[in-house]
Amino acid sequence: MYGAGDVRVENVPDPVLREPTDAIVRVVWTCICGSDLHPYHNMPASEHVTPMGHEFLGVVEDLGAEVTGLTKGDLVVASFAFQDNTCEFCGEGVQTSCRHGGFFDTAQAEAIRVPQAAGTLVKLPVSEDSALLPSLLTLADVYGTGYHAAKRANVNPRTTVTVIDDGAVGLLAVLSAKQLGAERIILMGRHTDRTDLGVEYGATDVVAERGEEGIDKVRELTGGDGTHTVLDAVGYKEAYEQALGVVRPGGAISRVGVPQYDEAPIGFSSLFGPNLTLTLTGGPAPVRAYIDQLLPDVLDGTVDPGKVFDRTVSLDEVPDGYRAMDRREAIKVLIRP
Amino acid sequence: MYGAGDVRVENVPDPVLREPTDAIVRVVWTCICGSDLHPYHNMPASEHVTPMGHEFLGVVEDLGAEVTGLTKGDLVVASFAFQDNTCEFCGEGVQTSCRHGGFFDTAQAEAIRVPQAAGTLVKLPVSEDSALLPSLLTLADVYGTGYHAAKRANVNPRTTVTVIDDGAVGLLAVLSAKQLGAERIILMGRHTDRTDLGVEYGATDVVAERGEEGIDKVRELTGGDGTHTVLDAVGYKEAYEQALGVVRPGGAISRVGVPQYDEAPIGFSSLFGPNLTLTLTGGPAPVRAYIDQLLPDVLDGTVDPGKVFDRTVSLDEVPDGYRAMDRREAIKVLIRP
Repeated sequence: MYGAGDVRVENVPDPVLREPTDAIVRVVWTCICGSDLHPYHNMPASEHVTPMGHEFLGVVEDLGAEVTGLTKGDLVVASFAFQDNTCEFCGEGVQTSCRHGGFFDTAQAEAIRVPQAAGTLVKLPVSEDSALLPSLLTLADVYGTGYHAAKRANVNPRTTVTVIDDGAVGLLAVLSAKQLGAERIILMGRHTDRTDLGVEYGATDVVAERGEEGIDKVRELTGGDGTHTVLDAVGYKEAYEQALGVVRPGGAISRVGVPQYDEAPIGFSSLFGPNLTLTLTGGPAPVRAYIDQLLPDVLDGTVDPGKVFDRTVSLDEVPDGYRAMDRREAIKVLIRP
Repeated sequence: MYGAGDVRVENVPDPVLREPTDAIVRVVWTCICGSDLHPYHNMPASEHVTPMGHEFLGVVEDLGAEVTGLTKGDLVVASFAFQDNTCEFCGEGVQTSCRHGGFFDTAQAEAIRVPQAAGTLVKLPVSEDSALLPSLLTLADVYGTGYHAAKRANVNPRTTVTVIDDGAVGLLAVLSAKQLGAERIILMGRHTDRTDLGVEYGATDVVAERGEEGIDKVRELTGGDGTHTVLDAVGYKEAYEQALGVVRPGGAISRVGVPQYDEAPIGFSSLFGPNLTLTLTGGPAPVRAYIDQLLPDVLDGTVDPGKVFDRTVSLDEVPDGYRAMDRREAIKVLIRP
């Protein structure tokens, strides 16, 4: 990316091992993330390229001498942040704050260097032509991020849930809330093709209205009280205000959309009076913590999170993929390098 | 109170039963709360009185026809908010959002009308001249509030804790964190008479510095990482900023000081770094939820939360009591009507 709206496909040198803990992975599937649209809207034009992409699934091509548990030829999925998965932060489930961690940003490519490969790559027991690969790719980010939102808000069978966002993360937050036992899941979204998938994933109600009107609608659906938890996968201040409007006293707002604002109301009338718990993930979700947990249901077909991918492009067509997501013509775009 | 700094003691009509769920309590002990100092600083002058006080312990003088479980002559303590203790919100531990609830504001008096008496008054198995009464009075607010801060932040034996505030709530948050098993408790406070009591209650470190200097000190004490939980019993924006500065990635800030600000940074950059996950929780403590839990250790002398009271005044001396707390000459002032 060279600036807002300016995505180009270029030849770059092949990645090579730099550290003995590295691996090189040939990318089989990668994709475009909703968060990639923020620079697609805002990035100042530059002569220097900003490589893109943090979600990938592929085949191990080369391994550093210290990487354990992996063999060349393994089919693997990575979490979008790399981590050693052994430090105290990883042990506490905050892999995104790993002492040796960082974030991928070159995954929309044919190959990628993977630091901390042993802690980052998860071997998949399927073949390269498995129909499950799109669903398995969601474990790299969007599914784990939606699950994180639901986990941090403590969604359980006694919890009513509002999900703000009908994008991939929001839809998979619906799926996650359902998996965690929630019986009432209200999805706020305006695009019926998306909310239909949300209903398939477990949403019991869809509210198309936004702002005050949307808040009134959710309150009406919940006897005036709002829901115990609100999962905000958007990140705009309007979504936060909507979340404050529909959360029940004593409840929790879990925000996993990358916030596009700094200051917001957290004072007496907004948060304190109603005894709300606000979970802020100022950065990305520690999805590595969830891969092992979510993998079995994907493998046996219990869930099909890959349905959020509704368009596939080649590497050359990536600029079209960004455009389609930006115009809401696609929920999430798969890339086949 | 007639305005900032203007506290007067006046004769008012005796309270009477209004609802069949009411009780009338003769106040044996009441006290001044740190939160009473906010209007003491800010209240615009008025010709109309604002009655004060929300913490009391006393003897049941009269009972409405529908009040169960209590008898005239019972010695009781009340939570600072009244509640039926039977509605769904009470059942979920959010008594401060009870469907039939509200807040006391006339407790600095000889007698008080208690709505929802059955759900609000807890009978005490001691006599009116027991030396335990000051400790039992802390169950009305400050002890339960400090405990709420620690509970909501999920303080446990694996959690390091910073407490911001050496006032009564902060000191009892230290005691609560200790009771919940925390082994490392850093108390931020500048008044050695107070922090000494904090150490007695379980603080392992005391940091007198504030702002950036205080943040640096706490980080230094924790290998650069900060603590898993921060209990903010202050409510000023500076305390929130301090909390953000000392909380460990993945940690929780639990705020029980009544916030004196509305907007504050909760965005991407303010969470100092792209990967901090934090929980902001707290609110008016549902202390009724904790009274039964905390009562036994007070009764058998395991804990002595009443040590936060370091001055006693008569009703006539209440204006002096406010002055003493305001000047930090007293931690918390008992009133004997």
